[in-house]
Amino acid sequence: MKGFTHTDGKSVRMVDVGSKAVVRRTATAEGHISLTEDTLKLIRKKRIEKGNVLVTAQIAAIAAVKRTWDLIPLCHPLPVTGVDVEFDVTADGITARVTVRCDGKTGVEMEALTGVSVALLTIWDMVKSVEKDEDGQYPETAISNIRVLKKEKAELEEVVE
Amino acid sequence: MKGFTHTDGKSVRMVDVGSKAVVRRTATAEGHISLTEDTLKLIRKKRIEKGNVLVTAQIAAIAAVKRTWDLIPLCHPLPVTGVDVEFDVTADGITARVTVRCDGKTGVEMEALTGVSVALLTIWDMVKSVEKDEDGQYPETAISNIRVLKKEKAELEEVVE
Amino acid sequence: MKGFTHTDGKSVRMVDVGSKAVVRRTATAEGHISLTEDTLKLIRKKRIEKGNVLVTAQIAAIAAVKRTWDLIPLCHPLPVTGVDVEFDVTADGITARVTVRCDGKTGVEMEALTGVSVALLTIWDMVKSVEKDEDGQYPETAISNIRVLKKEKAELEEVVE
Amino acid sequence: MKGFTHTDGKSVRMVDVGSKAVVRRTATAEGHISLTEDTLKLIRKKRIEKGNVLVTAQIAAIAAVKRTWDLIPLCHPLPVTGVDVEFDVTADGITARVTVRCDGKTGVEMEALTGVSVALLTIWDMVKSVEKDEDGQYPETAISNIRVLKKEKAELEEVVE
Amino acid sequence: MKGFTHTDGKSVRMVDVGSKAVVRRTATAEGHISLTEDTLKLIRKKRIEKGNVLVTAQIAAIAAVKRTWDLIPLCHPLPVTGVDVEFDVTADGITARVTVRCDGKTGVEMEALTGVSVALLTIWDMVKSVEKDEDGQYPETAISNIRVLKKEKAELEEVVE
Amino acid sequence: MKGFTHTDGKSVRMVDVGSKAVVRRTATAEGHISLTEDTLKLIRKKRIEKGNVLVTAQIAAIAAVKRTWDLIPLCHPLPVTGVDVEFDVTADGITARVTVRCDGKTGVEMEALTGVSVALLTIWDMVKSVEKDEDGQYPETAISNIRVLKKEKAELEEVVE
Repeated sequence: MKGFTHTDGKSVRMVDVGSKAVVRRTATAEGHISLTEDTLKLIRKKRIEKGNVLVTAQIAAIAAVKRTWDLIPLCHPLPVTGVDVEFDVTADGITARVTVRCDGKTGVEMEALTGVSVALLTIWDMVKSVEKDEDGQYPETAISNIRVLKKEKAELEEVVE
Repeated sequence: MKGFTHTDGKSVRMVDVGSKAVVRRTATAEGHISLTEDTLKLIRKKRIEKGNVLVTAQIAAIAAVKRTWDLIPLCHPLPVTGVDVEFDVTADGITARVTVRCDGKTGVEMEALTGVSVALLTIWDMVKSVEKDEDGQYPETAISNIRVLKKEKAELEEVVE
Repeated sequence: MKGFTHTDGKSVRMVDVGSKAVVRRTATAEGHISLTEDTLKLIRKKRIEKGNVLVTAQIAAIAAVKRTWDLIPLCHPLPVTGVDVEFDVTADGITARVTVRCDGKTGVEMEALTGVSVALLTIWDMVKSVEKDEDGQYPETAISNIRVLKKEKAELEEVVE
Repeated sequence: MKGFTHTDGKSVRMVDVGSKAVVRRTATAEGHISLTEDTLKLIRKKRIEKGNVLVTAQIAAIAAVKRTWDLIPLCHPLPVTGVDVEFDVTADGITARVTVRCDGKTGVEMEALTGVSVALLTIWDMVKSVEKDEDGQYPETAISNIRVLKKEKAELEEVVE
Repeated sequence: MKGFTHTDGKSVRMVDVGSKAVVRRTATAEGHISLTEDTLKLIRKKRIEKGNVLVTAQIAAIAAVKRTWDLIPLCHPLPVTGVDVEFDVTADGITARVTVRCDGKTGVEMEALTGVSVALLTIWDMVKSVEKDEDGQYPETAISNIRVLKKEKAELEEVVE
Repeated sequence: MKGFTHTDGKSVRMVDVGSKAVVRRTATAEGHISLTEDTLKLIRKKRIEKGNVLVTAQIAAIAAVKRTWDLIPLCHPLPVTGVDVEFDVTADGITARVTVRCDGKTGVEMEALTGVSVALLTIWDMVKSVEKDEDGQYPETAISNIRVLKKEKAELEEVVE
């Protein structure tokens, strides 16, 4: 196979995980979006013009979790079994927390992180008109502190139909 | 985890099915589209301008079955093993019947229903120009009676290579 | 180009719409899902285990409208400018109504019909556990009467930034 | 249309932008991922096992920009005309900056923000094995400071073929 | 913007085409798949077990044309207006020819080439069981001679509704 | 089920593979793109304007392998575990070789072939501006000799976590 570029350290590969065990995988990730007081008030009163911000963000996060393999180039496709998306509306913004479960050969932290990112982006999109200043800029809006809270694996539990 | 909105009954979650058994799942769904006599004649004679109506609808249905997890927000991704799409051209329209098979942790009735829906929508799209009246409206076209005929599960049979 | 199968009436083509005018297109479609009284009570009280049924169905419908070109084989890609999804919870089920707007070369009735279909399928998915009988079947659930209420086109209005 | 839930302030809609002008839109967004010194050394030397981190992240970002309408529920589809993805490898991590251009009816800040988010997630995925501690956790990795640097619109310039 | 990697000649960008004119674009591409005599006989007699080979390949090609922007990393999204897929069943295989039309800022040769490639791959998939030898290998099957026959552009013609 | 069109030999089905064994599957495919000397020189010097040709083609190929089930109508979804994409820059063009691994019920040759095809199409797209002649045509560019080098299956090896 002389001449092929594979081993020169500059190319990309999707590492084979065929020999890894299928175990129960769980990962929880979190992140925060800073919003103005006005926006937070409108969210609490459910008066955002585009509609229900948090449910829309939950659904967007779940969809993104399921599509992580198609968004992150070297992620493996995984049969996700469950997704939880929670929000904490704080004094200066909203914290999103996503937990992903899967019986698979690789961890699901990228799925949880992708869910958090898309949840926060969706919140931003829903409140654009109130976050923008008079010049159409976003001086206060920012997403930060996206991180993995916990990653676990365990033997497959006994199945119960 | 105080403050998080998860348990207030208004948020959305993708229920974890990790502890359910992998069994052989089958579901059959059916639905009907009402069409004008003229359109049905053209379909029977294979003279619809856009082309082969029924094969196009079959392929669209199979694609939709495989993508159900990406269309229905809380559906789990499932490794579909087989899809059958059949049509009965009747006196007043076409009945579509879709059977989906899978070895998985959840039933496949949503996959079968999605296949039927997309098959019928595709038929509509193929015959738009003959179904429309002179005002561009569809006074007679309608999709109805989409339902699950049968849903089954069974122990995984012995595999035979 | 002798020998090519194109003109034998059995093949499929995506008709060129390049010479059609770009006009303002609107289409409204509607459909109904029959549900049991118990399910409707739970939906009204927002006590469905999977979460907020109607907002989930709205978001699924909007996503499906935007992807219609990828679901229905011969549909053209269209720059959808607006989507409205409304529900009427009636005595025996839920009616979904979807209006789609676009400045384009082809009508948007397939987009509206696809939105209605996916809205109703999503409702079904959200209430599966309460609609199923003790044998796991759906004796009463059915989707029906999916049709186009109105389809319009108009000259592009003056743009106002 | 009595009975329909549309106006109760809790539902979701995709606001119609049909009457907005098509203008040249530009938006630039930025974000940062904190990485360990060891990881940054390996990236600089192009010795990350999975391959070329920055080019992979660029391509993932461009793909995500093009799919923003399909990831963020209420975003409108937009004909993106150009995407630039740049990285600055700093002492404590990598800053990603994405500029998106489009001739359209709505701004492209969500596209730029989505590109930045997916670029940073892809970097994380590429360096997972070196960022993880002995317990499989990520004590130091974090994504932060995702924000819009600048958003502009301008009359369509004269086209030059 | 010192430090950013953009101009080092090794990174990737999606070149901005915002200043190019919208013109009528057409491209035709062609390619060939070599098949055994036995397979060609079965195709001619429509006795391939998986079903109608050529219509399936047409539909797959049209879908791939519409998704080219999502498959080829630096392609721009384009509003395809028409697709024609033709086949010539020859003595030693099948030739596929795809013509794509679009009113856009960039040419559509990649769309036509992608359509041809997926048409030929779909044919291969449909006849796998008859093309395979007793060891499950494909000694005779091959795709070749994929090329652009013609690429054109023209002023937008007068629109006729 | 009288009247249904299923068994008339002209319809399409996705054959059920539920009863096949899950085994370790591997397939390697290869293909070639002919390019001008000028283009090959620029690729070798990494001076192609759009950027890093080979890494872009690798990533596009990996994405296409993962999406094969969504591109080829009757392919089954498969949990791909690994993908290798290699290139050999020869005197008259570039050869792409793709190896796909999976633990599944069906072979992965279509995934490998799809990866090769999209790798070669991506290379073409990256070098369009240098391959085109003064009339915007491609007199020398061509993709050829796409074939399966080897297809194998084996018992699932012992898993090692």
